Amino acid sequence: MINDKMFELGNSASIIRELFEYGKKRKKIIGDENVFDYSIGNPSNPAPEIVNETLTKLLKEKSSIELHGYTSAQGDYEVRTAITNYLNKTYGCAESGDLIYLTVGAAAALTILLHAILTTGDEVIVFAPYFPEYKVFIEQAGGKVVVVNCEVPSFQIDFCALRKSITKNTKAIIIDSPNNPTGVVLTNETITLLAKVLNEKEKEFHHPIYLISDEPYRELIYDDTKYPFVTNFYDNTIVCYSFSKSLSLAGERIGYILVGSKAVDAKRLYTAVCGAGRALGYVCAPAIFQYMLPACLGHTADLSVYQKNRDMLYQELTKIGYEVVYPNGAFYLFVKALEEDDLSFSKRAQAYELLLVPSKSFGFSGYVRISYCVNPKMIENSLKAFRALYDSYNKR
Amino acid sequence: MINDKMFELGNSASIIRELFEYGKKRKKIIGDENVFDYSIGNPSNPAPEIVNETLTKLLKEKSSIELHGYTSAQGDYEVRTAITNYLNKTYGCAESGDLIYLTVGAAAALTILLHAILTTGDEVIVFAPYFPEYKVFIEQAGGKVVVVNCEVPSFQIDFCALRKSITKNTKAIIIDSPNNPTGVVLTNETITLLAKVLNEKEKEFHHPIYLISDEPYRELIYDDTKYPFVTNFYDNTIVCYSFSKSLSLAGERIGYILVGSKAVDAKRLYTAVCGAGRALGYVCAPAIFQYMLPACLGHTADLSVYQKNRDMLYQELTKIGYEVVYPNGAFYLFVKALEEDDLSFSKRAQAYELLLVPSKSFGFSGYVRISYCVNPKMIENSLKAFRALYDSYNKR
Repeated sequence: MINDKMFELGNSASIIRELFEYGKKRKKIIGDENVFDYSIGNPSNPAPEIVNETLTKLLKEKSSIELHGYTSAQGDYEVRTAITNYLNKTYGCAESGDLIYLTVGAAAALTILLHAILTTGDEVIVFAPYFPEYKVFIEQAGGKVVVVNCEVPSFQIDFCALRKSITKNTKAIIIDSPNNPTGVVLTNETITLLAKVLNEKEKEFHHPIYLISDEPYRELIYDDTKYPFVTNFYDNTIVCYSFSKSLSLAGERIGYILVGSKAVDAKRLYTAVCGAGRALGYVCAPAIFQYMLPACLGHTADLSVYQKNRDMLYQELTKIGYEVVYPNGAFYLFVKALEEDDLSFSKRAQAYELLLVPSKSFGFSGYVRISYCVNPKMIENSLKAFRALYDSYNKR
Repeated sequence: MINDKMFELGNSASIIRELFEYGKKRKKIIGDENVFDYSIGNPSNPAPEIVNETLTKLLKEKSSIELHGYTSAQGDYEVRTAITNYLNKTYGCAESGDLIYLTVGAAAALTILLHAILTTGDEVIVFAPYFPEYKVFIEQAGGKVVVVNCEVPSFQIDFCALRKSITKNTKAIIIDSPNNPTGVVLTNETITLLAKVLNEKEKEFHHPIYLISDEPYRELIYDDTKYPFVTNFYDNTIVCYSFSKSLSLAGERIGYILVGSKAVDAKRLYTAVCGAGRALGYVCAPAIFQYMLPACLGHTADLSVYQKNRDMLYQELTKIGYEVVYPNGAFYLFVKALEEDDLSFSKRAQAYELLLVPSKSFGFSGYVRISYCVNPKMIENSLKAFRALYDSYNKR
């Protein structure tokens, strides 16, 4: 007498969540410091001080009715304009506050957007390894997931495979750079070529193919990598963004959908976004977090902490002998499993108290994901375990 | 190339929203004080002080990572337990924190719940006049809306009509007490009889019929009216609640779904709620507003302001000659239009600068809704216009 599909979704804990729960139990038995939990992507850095300062100021200075009352469904217009001003200045794009729709985080942004553009049977291409909830969100909106594997070992786009997968039913393509789970940032060249391929295919099939750029890790980028802002490369781009990682606010749920100003029928598309937000019960994004944004744009949590973790882990694991994908962004390391079956490898790692997420969770074989948004001390302490795990394979 | 249904939803401004926008424009022309805007239900009272005090304290004292990080999808367990402890103490029920799911407000609660229980073709009964978004939410979840008119002039349930409308396809019934738009509180007797009818129909059709109690106005209740908490009357009850009105936090989006502890397969139903939240991109309710709740349970904005407004308007309008439904709760007055067509009546009221929402917006004919969450001064100033409007009909 309930919706079985929803029951199944509620009942199927992800492998990541299972590992995390196992870790919690295990820590109680052998002590926190003896479990090396690399399972979860929860920011380990405090929010930059300006966040709490601005929130405190708003609470003190703005009238309660104004501060806590409804905003328009799309979000406060001044806030939306501040965001596009910031984007235009930072990335040299020409976006408009009229085409920003504030959301309760990136998951809401994706869900609302997919409902706005998809009709039953439309295909959406994702690049494996991919964030597992993409499948849930696409299917809930009536779409069909088409998986295209990345090029190995660069984890950029495999254009040969992509070209073959675009059909007349392809409505959208999702990219996620810096990537979860690989940490790879798509290069300028990749985005340029992607735009070229999509333009060709749009002409071939006589309809727009939307490029959905899911960018929760946009600011988590290292080594002076320059971020190619996608609306500058391809007209039919829609950005889904969240402040969860950049401002370490994952629990507060604030993000946005930006319809590129050059997208075909951008205003019509934006109206459909508003309609989808309404249909799904999203009334507005939390007001105080909207009003906080203008003062915090361009600020981030202390990224050097993540970069140091990355450097230490990358160097040490490579030194031991692991094959590690070099990541320019996010807080994930993608490491080749030492046997074909990544589930079995992850299982064996558990014997060394290492909690590594098998890449099967991301629709890809043969790797594990390491979330390095952790205490640096834990990394140091875990190196012995990584060594022992490696040796256990070479002794075989 | 977009979803037309979503475009239509985004494009069809509600009559309420249109009136509100008209009012904004009109105020610019003839001055704020000369437009009597009774269109919108935005709390006109500040949040109780404890809200900002608690938020400020959390910002100061709780570690940033704990405060702003992800909570579990269902919400922080201690917060959920605090809520059921409060409910159990206040209403003498026996609910469990294990069956609370925190949401970004009541609209999200309804949407998630409807997705959790409905499968295509299921019928959901609503009582007209009804909150217009019910139709949007029910249809988005695959359900079919069945409208049963209230008994006039009490605006309690018309049980004869209800009995006839329950079929083997009836999955749920939504009640909304205190009611938007009438302000009427369903009595103990009504809820008792409703439970009896539903129990009979459950037996007849051999499946549960869920009673969804949408309670955003639960605490906005006057004249020592005692609120009949619905899980005490009927087992298969699910409560959707929001702190938007009680704490004047409409823009911050915090509320919950409570699955009644005696509901059939309550745990299974709750799991489906979790699944629906996941499918719709609701990751968790804003963390700081979750943590704020335990200190604020049982507090409300100053309700005496609303009650005074109600008293003044009810007395004065009745004195002029209007037929007004006596409301025990919420901040709405339902007034009989002076001609059959409420749209035409609302239009004529505009000539007197009175913005009254025609009851057609709520699936009901012949009335207008007055939102009295306004400055008392505006009410006083508007009485002349109400008189002139009335006279204009009697001179005809």
